[in-house]
Amino acid sequence: MRKIEHIGIAVKSLSDSNDLFEKLFGVAPYKEEEVESEGVKTSFFMNGPNKIELLEATNPESPIAKFIEKKGEGIHHIAFDVENIYVEVERLKKEGFVILNEIPKKGADNKLVVFLHPKSTNGVLIELCQEIAD
Amino acid sequence: MRKIEHIGIAVKSLSDSNDLFEKLFGVAPYKEEEVESEGVKTSFFMNGPNKIELLEATNPESPIAKFIEKKGEGIHHIAFDVENIYVEVERLKKEGFVILNEIPKKGADNKLVVFLHPKSTNGVLIELCQEIAD
Repeated sequence: MRKIEHIGIAVKSLSDSNDLFEKLFGVAPYKEEEVESEGVKTSFFMNGPNKIELLEATNPESPIAKFIEKKGEGIHHIAFDVENIYVEVERLKKEGFVILNEIPKKGADNKLVVFLHPKSTNGVLIELCQEIAD
Repeated sequence: MRKIEHIGIAVKSLSDSNDLFEKLFGVAPYKEEEVESEGVKTSFFMNGPNKIELLEATNPESPIAKFIEKKGEGIHHIAFDVENIYVEVERLKKEGFVILNEIPKKGADNKLVVFLHPKSTNGVLIELCQEIAD
């Protein structure tokens, strides 16, 4: 794990929250992207070596809709940048972490992603992500 | 705001969670520190340009004890590194953010810190922090 790649924040309205975070950072999001398989619309802000991802649900079955229903808006996950996601998943499995999807899936922002179950990580939903080579 | 300085995670047992995050990152915390005024014991892990701070309450009135009682263990705050905390507080006030302590206070890890109220930031407790010059 080489750095915090991004922090994912669950929001009710991407449009309202884009305005809010633009005020906070003093810059606009550098992209918006829908990830249909996850039922989310996302936007990304650069912050030095890190990013902030805002996530709005696109349907009531989306994990983000369920998260907001249960906990309200707020931090949803932390994503760490990894060099080789397959090697990292093997290492973490051996250490006893519970992997939610052992086979990396395509996430937003051109990444392969794997999630660790929060029950094995102090209640924190952790994402590993690796940039997909062109 | 120049980068994510650290993410603060509320934990029940610093000792247990130090072991857990040492397995996650493959490195031990680089320091432990008690902040008496906040009622917390903390430990810090380096992760590239970022840090992870674990926080355990030292008394039942600690904000961390109350957070865990209400929400369970998990992500407590995001801290952004700022060059000049006084300038940043003025800018954010003008933008309509609610500042919890307008006068920066001494936090862990040799920092001046200011918190923004989560009600003005999509439910996210945001800390601004500036390294104290020697």
